[in-house]
Amino acid sequence: MDVKILLKESDIPKTWYNVVADMKYAPAAVLHPGTGKPVGPDDLSPLFPMPLIEQEVSAQREIPIPEEVRRIYALWRPTPMCRALRLEAAIGTKSKIYYKYEGVSPAGSHKPNTAIPQAYYNKMAGRKRIATETGAGQWGSAMALGGSFFGLDVKVYMVNVSYNQKPYRRMYMEAYGAQVVASPSRDTNAGRGILAESPDSPGSLGIAISEAVEDAATRPDTSYALGSVLNHVCLHQTVIGIEAKEQMKIAGDYPDVVIGCCGGGSNLSGIGFPFLRDKFDGKRDPRIVAVEPASCPTLTKGIYAYDFGDTAKLTPLIKMYTLGHDFVPPGIHAGGLRYHGNSALISQLYHEKLLEGQAYGQIAVFQSALTFAKAEGLLPAPESSHAIHAAIVEARRADEEGKRKTILFNLSGHGYFDLAAYDDFINGRLADHEHPAEKIQEALDRLPKVEV
Amino acid sequence: MDVKILLKESDIPKTWYNVVADMKYAPAAVLHPGTGKPVGPDDLSPLFPMPLIEQEVSAQREIPIPEEVRRIYALWRPTPMCRALRLEAAIGTKSKIYYKYEGVSPAGSHKPNTAIPQAYYNKMAGRKRIATETGAGQWGSAMALGGSFFGLDVKVYMVNVSYNQKPYRRMYMEAYGAQVVASPSRDTNAGRGILAESPDSPGSLGIAISEAVEDAATRPDTSYALGSVLNHVCLHQTVIGIEAKEQMKIAGDYPDVVIGCCGGGSNLSGIGFPFLRDKFDGKRDPRIVAVEPASCPTLTKGIYAYDFGDTAKLTPLIKMYTLGHDFVPPGIHAGGLRYHGNSALISQLYHEKLLEGQAYGQIAVFQSALTFAKAEGLLPAPESSHAIHAAIVEARRADEEGKRKTILFNLSGHGYFDLAAYDDFINGRLADHEHPAEKIQEALDRLPKVEV
Repeated sequence: MDVKILLKESDIPKTWYNVVADMKYAPAAVLHPGTGKPVGPDDLSPLFPMPLIEQEVSAQREIPIPEEVRRIYALWRPTPMCRALRLEAAIGTKSKIYYKYEGVSPAGSHKPNTAIPQAYYNKMAGRKRIATETGAGQWGSAMALGGSFFGLDVKVYMVNVSYNQKPYRRMYMEAYGAQVVASPSRDTNAGRGILAESPDSPGSLGIAISEAVEDAATRPDTSYALGSVLNHVCLHQTVIGIEAKEQMKIAGDYPDVVIGCCGGGSNLSGIGFPFLRDKFDGKRDPRIVAVEPASCPTLTKGIYAYDFGDTAKLTPLIKMYTLGHDFVPPGIHAGGLRYHGNSALISQLYHEKLLEGQAYGQIAVFQSALTFAKAEGLLPAPESSHAIHAAIVEARRADEEGKRKTILFNLSGHGYFDLAAYDDFINGRLADHEHPAEKIQEALDRLPKVEV
Repeated sequence: MDVKILLKESDIPKTWYNVVADMKYAPAAVLHPGTGKPVGPDDLSPLFPMPLIEQEVSAQREIPIPEEVRRIYALWRPTPMCRALRLEAAIGTKSKIYYKYEGVSPAGSHKPNTAIPQAYYNKMAGRKRIATETGAGQWGSAMALGGSFFGLDVKVYMVNVSYNQKPYRRMYMEAYGAQVVASPSRDTNAGRGILAESPDSPGSLGIAISEAVEDAATRPDTSYALGSVLNHVCLHQTVIGIEAKEQMKIAGDYPDVVIGCCGGGSNLSGIGFPFLRDKFDGKRDPRIVAVEPASCPTLTKGIYAYDFGDTAKLTPLIKMYTLGHDFVPPGIHAGGLRYHGNSALISQLYHEKLLEGQAYGQIAVFQSALTFAKAEGLLPAPESSHAIHAAIVEARRADEEGKRKTILFNLSGHGYFDLAAYDDFINGRLADHEHPAEKIQEALDRLPKVEV
């Protein structure tokens, strides 16, 4: 049988799937951090162009993908689905393991699926510039690429410690014409304020968000852009799962379980929501599994409550699973999963038990990553390796139970920029961090007081 | 029209194409460095397993690809061919530009096309270990991957300066289980001898070859492996061109010119030889163009003569275009093209004017690389960018002449590990180096004296 299940260019989806249309309850309102009242389009328009605000609040099931976006998607989409025959043999399972591979995008992850339409809608709305933040660098790379395609200037506030530790990520963004500064920077009030107090601040995603938001809010030609969490971001990622369903049809198969790693939720939304649709339609009953790092177990150990999206309490309040807006996760290597909160949509669906959560320590995750790399060839990103590990755990459990399952996971990116993490793992320099129970109570005590 | 022209897994070639069968003259004999007599299989058997030695001297037109090799090829092959519509628009040409993309392999370049069969034949022959060298790291990465697939230990002698400058490449090889040492090392007589004289030696490809050859020659369980130059390496790479011809058929097109960068020659052989076959068959008359760096212009400014393959004069003598075995090219960023010599097959075909040569400076090459990256999304390797530049030059010339040409080039790898080079280019730290005429005379004076 074929290892790769490929679609034609004409199979690139023509619409994104909006899960909101099928949810039991409307999404919880997003609240203004000052007034505690629901935010409206006018509150958001300094930051985002109107088409993205409309998508953020839309309840329309199918949202058309602009033809110009589809033409750029065509540079790497449809992405391949692979039957992991060699991995199955390596772990000796009777189950069938498939993976959808998003690392073929020019930026090496699923992030361009939303960076391209975000750049497109900003261009259409007449914005000239995009300000954004990046931690590990995946999102900044995707946004630099998106800006380059549409002739938009992109400024990336890159967490200072990453800026210094990951020069290749900075250089990648600069190669595509983006301006990259270490955050906190001298370019914003937020940045200058922090530097005045801590000249050697290592920065944080929270600080970088504050800088990018200030930049966009104070310049009419500039939008803010986010690479996860928001509804329109999750929406754009559904091209992954829509394609995966077609590929499963070609394989003559259907997954018992669909697995994605979960930080802000865009990757899990992408692979999971289109399969969830089959559940809503009563056609099928796949399990959808969100995989988190044990050191930042938002869904599995967090609280479902209103909280800030950032440390500095500048963003609107979102009802989501959270470990507390001031929780700083340990410095694990899956930087893309180190977020205290989660997507509002993922949170609500998880709360309704339509999604499952699992959390694993990074040592087990890297072990599975190398098992995969040696069997299938590809070196996976540490974030994606959480999904690999969960798939292997699932296959082994099925073997123990004498069952043969069909398992699908999303391999959201490659690990070419993460080799220092592999080096640490091989040389025994990684540690596991469990989330201590007392931290939950501390976070609970500091949640913003909200009356809804 | 579709951007990507994809083949099915069943279209992976079943045979490699051996250009020797169609050459006007038999390849010039390879000579023993001590006796000056032609080397035979017995001279080579300490270094290579017999099936590879047979391929090295074979005149059989089609050589079957083992099924186990095809199954591993299937993890990423057939590779895509893309119509570069966005690049065509960016440079405003009327010509059609296609590229074959080999960067989808797990190691990120065309090198696994030969690393996989080399590992396979060594495994079949009962060898347990492979010793090899690597400069920029592409070849070492591919061999580490190949060894991992077949359970062979791989030891890579990595040029000291690269070992320190490219830690990610070292880490990649180690992730796949290879042992990597900086060369010169204390593990061989050759290495110890050099360290005794120069404890801080930066190393060179010549030294690393000496170490790997000594390692293999002194251990019966160990083979030596090379990633370019040799006939069997060029043979394995022909899967590229064989697929490309099928893809051109699907596109309903045929290239007027086929372009590949050329260092040791494996990449140009891969894309070029199958098209050359059409010329031999009298079916078509495509131009095949080898693109070199102006700083190391082996074909375009070298001498066609017998020379050593390495600086230390340990290898057999090969009749090839050479700049002299002791020529040390300037430290340009296309490390894979910094070789004083060339493939014997490429050299002979070039001498018979069946191939063309072009040489370009690296500044123009990086400019074209970024033009390509911003148009097509993908960040190309500096080596492959030589082919991109030649394709752009070709398209512009056709426009000036009022012609519309069909241009095909091989994009042999991605540039994720080469971002320091892009950073140097963007910040004006790159220089061009022309090869001075007096160097040619110097090299001529030092060529080994050979009577054939």
